[in-house]
Amino acid sequence: MPELRRDPVVGRWVIISTERGKRPSDFGTMVAPRRTGFCPFCPGHEEKTPPEVYAVRENGAAPNSPGWRVRVVSNKFPALQIEGDLDRRAEGIYDKMNGVGAHEVIIESPEHDRELSQNSIEQINLILGAYRARIIDLARDKRFRYIQLFKNHGEAAGASLEHSHTQLVATPIVPRRIMEELAGCEQHYEMKERCIFCDIIDQELAVGKRVAAENADYICICPFAPRFPFETWILPKAHQAYFEQSYQGNFYALARILKESLMRMNQALHNPPYNFVLHTSPCNDFRGPKHHHWHIEIMPKLTRIAGFEWGTGFYINPTPPEDAAAYLREARVTPEDLSLPTPGAPDRSSAGVS
Amino acid sequence: MPELRRDPVVGRWVIISTERGKRPSDFGTMVAPRRTGFCPFCPGHEEKTPPEVYAVRENGAAPNSPGWRVRVVSNKFPALQIEGDLDRRAEGIYDKMNGVGAHEVIIESPEHDRELSQNSIEQINLILGAYRARIIDLARDKRFRYIQLFKNHGEAAGASLEHSHTQLVATPIVPRRIMEELAGCEQHYEMKERCIFCDIIDQELAVGKRVAAENADYICICPFAPRFPFETWILPKAHQAYFEQSYQGNFYALARILKESLMRMNQALHNPPYNFVLHTSPCNDFRGPKHHHWHIEIMPKLTRIAGFEWGTGFYINPTPPEDAAAYLREARVTPEDLSLPTPGAPDRSSAGVS
Repeated sequence: MPELRRDPVVGRWVIISTERGKRPSDFGTMVAPRRTGFCPFCPGHEEKTPPEVYAVRENGAAPNSPGWRVRVVSNKFPALQIEGDLDRRAEGIYDKMNGVGAHEVIIESPEHDRELSQNSIEQINLILGAYRARIIDLARDKRFRYIQLFKNHGEAAGASLEHSHTQLVATPIVPRRIMEELAGCEQHYEMKERCIFCDIIDQELAVGKRVAAENADYICICPFAPRFPFETWILPKAHQAYFEQSYQGNFYALARILKESLMRMNQALHNPPYNFVLHTSPCNDFRGPKHHHWHIEIMPKLTRIAGFEWGTGFYINPTPPEDAAAYLREARVTPEDLSLPTPGAPDRSSAGVS
Repeated sequence: MPELRRDPVVGRWVIISTERGKRPSDFGTMVAPRRTGFCPFCPGHEEKTPPEVYAVRENGAAPNSPGWRVRVVSNKFPALQIEGDLDRRAEGIYDKMNGVGAHEVIIESPEHDRELSQNSIEQINLILGAYRARIIDLARDKRFRYIQLFKNHGEAAGASLEHSHTQLVATPIVPRRIMEELAGCEQHYEMKERCIFCDIIDQELAVGKRVAAENADYICICPFAPRFPFETWILPKAHQAYFEQSYQGNFYALARILKESLMRMNQALHNPPYNFVLHTSPCNDFRGPKHHHWHIEIMPKLTRIAGFEWGTGFYINPTPPEDAAAYLREARVTPEDLSLPTPGAPDRSSAGVS
């Protein structure tokens, strides 16, 4: 059983995940790829993954068989385990609990070589719908307090399988980074009775120099104090605490800005490895999110995190966000790149939970 | 001029370092090494670095000429600049100040290929003495509030030059990680009137299973909630807030445990890339460190930090520290490895500040 352990000084929780590699000889060189030629995420190999928990199918095919457009399965090597109670306990001055949680994989398309932004707007809308459906379903489990959605693209960003996928981990505590964000939002609201992310959006729209992309509902900015060169944030312009509740799950405009933001990054930086994370409000009303504002943070991996960053929590970023935004705006993205094949046509695929 | 900018939500400061590479084309692939065959840190190339600010010489040779045993110079591409005032100011809702600080490089020996632990105890004592001398000297500058010493070994750990060296950055604010540590120490002291690190040391000595190495004055443990597999911490057994004040600068015992800890890690993990950081108390009495306890954190780079970690601040560690400590204890280190060439002989080299 994995364990959650708390650092007694700074209060940081870590997951001690004994189900994964652990002996010294299990750590290869960090650059060694894990490409066996066989892909468990490709159609026809459905039996090589745990059974699907969600899929979008057009042809009425049976679960766990080919014919899907988006497919969600449990991670075969989960960081946390779905069964069991937390069993919070002490070990002398230390605190720990069982590593209870969920760890799932959203397989973004049947195509092995298709990076997220290479999908059509329609397909990206289906992917975002899968994110939403899984978050809503997992939030029903009262043991979970947060659901972290994230994507690792490319080996340097931590991806261990090439086939484009997103991951999701449900945790029994609200993670540190989210708590810090909520605390910052609350502090600002106490003082000004305004959402700090709404204030950021207002200033960025007025100033313009850090805006990388924009449509009617969303903005993509290079944030004022980015940790990483060419880091971008996608935010809904309207105040919304929960990703899964926003726009009633109509994600075409989000699909458009996500595709555009990734395309601009890929063009400017020649398809870099990248991570993105979704920051939404905690589930099950823990520390109720009065003033949070959900957003996506996209981080291309261009520099190494080294001793200074580990020691201080301070980041050295060699590219001012104003310069990064200018490069991103210069990248060529056409209206056709962001249009639907049949504009306005309703999506006829049906999502089925297997 | 570099800038320090503050994220308005979570309060994290970043350094926007415009003196370094910044255009999209300046970011190569992350795996590309920067080995030109020419090493500016080797003896005879002293004119290729900024002038030395400290050196240990045995032969009375002139500054910035060969004949040194340890040499400290300013970083040629500093993240922060030594000249100027902070000039704290707002930009709308944002906060920033000038990137004032110091960034130095401690060249650990004249030997190009000698990793830190391959040095003699006597040489490591000189290196630790150089750390101490630079910290004491920089702390005289009232603009600085923290001096972060860190080492990047190997390319995957962020080292851009092979020749073994340590770095030091003096910052005008106390970094976030240190503030968190100080807050944790204070909270524990408020409650119990004891130092939390002293409590940790007591429990680890009593339990034993997470101890990787030990001598009369120091302990090396795999911490209870480590972020990284085989992470170790070296702590003085006696309560001491300031590295630079401890044992009146007699660092032979520290040299021994540092060498032993690195040797055990190198043997168990086949010379991995690694970072280490020194956490000592802030300088110039900012948030006076009543209850802090200095220590060194050593982090071999065996796994990648990916989206989950960036999103949550939570770490997934596949090796329980109890297992890691057992592997480290098994590694063979002989008493001869840790002895002085002439036991007890006084060190006759003299440190000269040029």
